[in-house]
Amino acid sequence: MTRIRVHNMTMSLDGYAAGPDQDLEHPLGTGGERLHEWIFETATFRRTYGDRSDGPPEEGLDDEFARLGDDEVGATVIGRNMFGPVRGPWPDEEWTGWWGDIPPYHHPVFVVTHHERAPLEMAGGTTFHFVTDGVEAAVEQAVAAAGGLDVRIGGGVQVLQQCLRAGLVDEMHLAIAPVLLGGGERLFDRLDGGPHGMEVAEMVSSTRVTHVRLVRATP
Amino acid sequence: MTRIRVHNMTMSLDGYAAGPDQDLEHPLGTGGERLHEWIFETATFRRTYGDRSDGPPEEGLDDEFARLGDDEVGATVIGRNMFGPVRGPWPDEEWTGWWGDIPPYHHPVFVVTHHERAPLEMAGGTTFHFVTDGVEAAVEQAVAAAGGLDVRIGGGVQVLQQCLRAGLVDEMHLAIAPVLLGGGERLFDRLDGGPHGMEVAEMVSSTRVTHVRLVRATP
Repeated sequence: MTRIRVHNMTMSLDGYAAGPDQDLEHPLGTGGERLHEWIFETATFRRTYGDRSDGPPEEGLDDEFARLGDDEVGATVIGRNMFGPVRGPWPDEEWTGWWGDIPPYHHPVFVVTHHERAPLEMAGGTTFHFVTDGVEAAVEQAVAAAGGLDVRIGGGVQVLQQCLRAGLVDEMHLAIAPVLLGGGERLFDRLDGGPHGMEVAEMVSSTRVTHVRLVRATP
Repeated sequence: MTRIRVHNMTMSLDGYAAGPDQDLEHPLGTGGERLHEWIFETATFRRTYGDRSDGPPEEGLDDEFARLGDDEVGATVIGRNMFGPVRGPWPDEEWTGWWGDIPPYHHPVFVVTHHERAPLEMAGGTTFHFVTDGVEAAVEQAVAAAGGLDVRIGGGVQVLQQCLRAGLVDEMHLAIAPVLLGGGERLFDRLDGGPHGMEVAEMVSSTRVTHVRLVRATP
């Protein structure tokens, strides 16, 4: 049974998943990078993305949560801003994502956008599919493409909120960073009084961050 | 040096210090009681307020944080809603607080209100003073009355936000409960991009709740 999962979604203590004054050059807003410092330290992140920290790669609780984000995932759904800074209709085929020639997905990725574009096959097994009929269609296509594995909702915040509103999420890992941003994009917002049908299964802290697992509530 | 402190202020995972649909009969809103279950279990709470749980009184991390709220406190500031459900001018002297004949403060308590009332001396050392010229005046009077001990901001949320906006808070203990309320009164709100001048000193989880200590940032 394919599950729809969210991992490593990080918010500040005051509830923001990105800081204030977001723009195309600063997609995480002012101070937003500080949210993610915990994951930069993990062995899992550094194997995939390289070193953004001088310390040794860390294993332990944070790394365990980081690693779960890749386990048994056969397809990913992301919003257009996660794919790149281009807005409006695609001017050409030049932009191929933030990740260079070999994106770290190694499976089909469904990009929710208003603007059609042909599928983009990259080295290493990642193909970007551009879905123009909404997040539910993107999730449906991802499930079909996942080959029996799970589907990960990769973000950003708006795609996640759309999935939560549609009741599509089976499991969500959230990290709370010990950071105050004072403004920005709230994670728990635009949810019509929800997230409905979700409950907290676990809350545990490392020295860097607090991890929370939300799961679909048992009826 | 008298410090201005906040203790045991609890918010939900989605950021609410009280649930939706607050009214005079339900001052914590729908589901808001669930925020405080962790403290009902503590030995400190039960010594003061009695048993609201069937289990044994718990010591350990949660109890340590609960107990700190009473240590070295010489005066308390609260909002009118924390004192009682009466709204508008005081019709008479009948309402004397939620706590019965012997309130658990045992020191001067300054109630921020728009409506004048004579001081109310209770058994056990608690006197309620009604302050009509704002939260800063209430804190100033509390400092003068604390006899060199600290002043606690007891809540509710609006009084706390006013104190944070005015830069009055030296230290704040916040508990994050593994609860989703879906709406209600946001804790980190109406802070003009703040809390300014505060930083996170500690974040640690028990099995029931995550504790965070905010302190005045060192310049």
